[in-house]
Amino acid sequence: MKDSSEPDGGFAQLVGYRLTKWEPDYAEVELALLPKHLNRSGVPHGGVIATLIDTTCGFVGCYCAVPGRVRRAMTLSMTTSFLGQAVAGDTLTAKARRTGGGKTIFFTRCDLVDSKGQLIATGEAVYKYRKGSEDPNGVPA
Amino acid sequence: MKDSSEPDGGFAQLVGYRLTKWEPDYAEVELALLPKHLNRSGVPHGGVIATLIDTTCGFVGCYCAVPGRVRRAMTLSMTTSFLGQAVAGDTLTAKARRTGGGKTIFFTRCDLVDSKGQLIATGEAVYKYRKGSEDPNGVPA
Amino acid sequence: MKDSSEPDGGFAQLVGYRLTKWEPDYAEVELALLPKHLNRSGVPHGGVIATLIDTTCGFVGCYCAVPGRVRRAMTLSMTTSFLGQAVAGDTLTAKARRTGGGKTIFFTRCDLVDSKGQLIATGEAVYKYRKGSEDPNGVPA
Amino acid sequence: MKDSSEPDGGFAQLVGYRLTKWEPDYAEVELALLPKHLNRSGVPHGGVIATLIDTTCGFVGCYCAVPGRVRRAMTLSMTTSFLGQAVAGDTLTAKARRTGGGKTIFFTRCDLVDSKGQLIATGEAVYKYRKGSEDPNGVPA
Repeated sequence: MKDSSEPDGGFAQLVGYRLTKWEPDYAEVELALLPKHLNRSGVPHGGVIATLIDTTCGFVGCYCAVPGRVRRAMTLSMTTSFLGQAVAGDTLTAKARRTGGGKTIFFTRCDLVDSKGQLIATGEAVYKYRKGSEDPNGVPA
Repeated sequence: MKDSSEPDGGFAQLVGYRLTKWEPDYAEVELALLPKHLNRSGVPHGGVIATLIDTTCGFVGCYCAVPGRVRRAMTLSMTTSFLGQAVAGDTLTAKARRTGGGKTIFFTRCDLVDSKGQLIATGEAVYKYRKGSEDPNGVPA
Repeated sequence: MKDSSEPDGGFAQLVGYRLTKWEPDYAEVELALLPKHLNRSGVPHGGVIATLIDTTCGFVGCYCAVPGRVRRAMTLSMTTSFLGQAVAGDTLTAKARRTGGGKTIFFTRCDLVDSKGQLIATGEAVYKYRKGSEDPNGVPA
Repeated sequence: MKDSSEPDGGFAQLVGYRLTKWEPDYAEVELALLPKHLNRSGVPHGGVIATLIDTTCGFVGCYCAVPGRVRRAMTLSMTTSFLGQAVAGDTLTAKARRTGGGKTIFFTRCDLVDSKGQLIATGEAVYKYRKGSEDPNGVPA
């Protein structure tokens, strides 16, 4: 699999999610749920869910086929619907794809499923490429 | 200040945010931004922003004046608009209030500001009380 | 096709959309775009798009198999991403399905496509059944 | 009051809302609720609420002080929280303001109140200026 051509950010390391599939206009991210991901009610924190959606949707528009180069974007808006509750010990997979956009803006949609394929959350996010990253060839990493 | 009558959840400890103000229908949460909160572009991860919004909005409807008791709710939906970018080293404050709702549902809105009071993000979230927590007197912690 | 067992509301008549498919957990609504649907820039008003999404998503959870009876729900929250622009003269189809929920709440997602199948907008909406309508057998129309 | 320097669009005429206040970064729109705005449950259609939010938020970033010129923008995303229910016969006022943005993108937030000032809905929307309209001096109407 194409990797992200650069080290994980601090929050990616802290939360512990992992990019497992990356293609033009599509990405998947996995997270094994641990006690550190729970809220005071003992279920995964909504922020963990939102983090996976934002991360995965962001990767969707930032695939870059050129070695040593990357594309960057900033989130403009994001929405999340919380459909069900995963449990600690399970693994979540966020699957996101591009739904539209043009040169500077891209739109995405994400499904977050548990290990049984049950839908835990859905969301949509809109991004704007950072300067230079509108180019599919990206910028130096 | 009224505290939450129960230990922080795992994700609260991991991220390191702190409930600093809590009243009926209002809450504030603070986070000192560290390298562990950044994404691969070196700015706070969108998931950190969303985490603060979900956390603070959730507290808004869960204030319980009765010692040793708590109220719990689950997020139904959440939205975030990313207006600006905070920098590592700064402190973010999320300020959320109740905008409406009834016995079982509550609506909230959140402003996220940096230490200069500049708006970094805004969001809205809708919650449903867990069984028993519709009662302002809450349930045993 | 099962119809809605009751006359259209005033806004449905004003806008002119038409329920064209209705099954448990799924609905489709069509609208032929006319000059009355345009904004001052000459393209379909965002409110027309949002109307189709809210209408179709609402139908999704309100199918009732019992003749003369209906189910009703109120929208708690709705989001819309505006991906592309349809043109006057074309026909839009909103296709929505249930993504989750329980006895009192249901979650939905909608795709809005033009006559070529191109995605014009996407959205998510959350609903709460009105009293009595949690029952699949509904209430008298 | 500065008017919009161009005739209302078709949907504005159809729905019947009216721009009542317009300043840089702020706008208000009013609508007298009539039977034509109701859904099959006899309350204002969610699409009417969303229309007012999108319209008002769009005006927020499109104020142009130069006579005979206008600014145009397209909605990227919009969210709505439905807090309460207005009744036919009442007048709704949507009040929206700019919350952030830069040269090409602007962020907005809207409160929708009834004639008693009670909050009926809130929402957020993000817009992108159309080509030429990034300039505060706008383009020919």
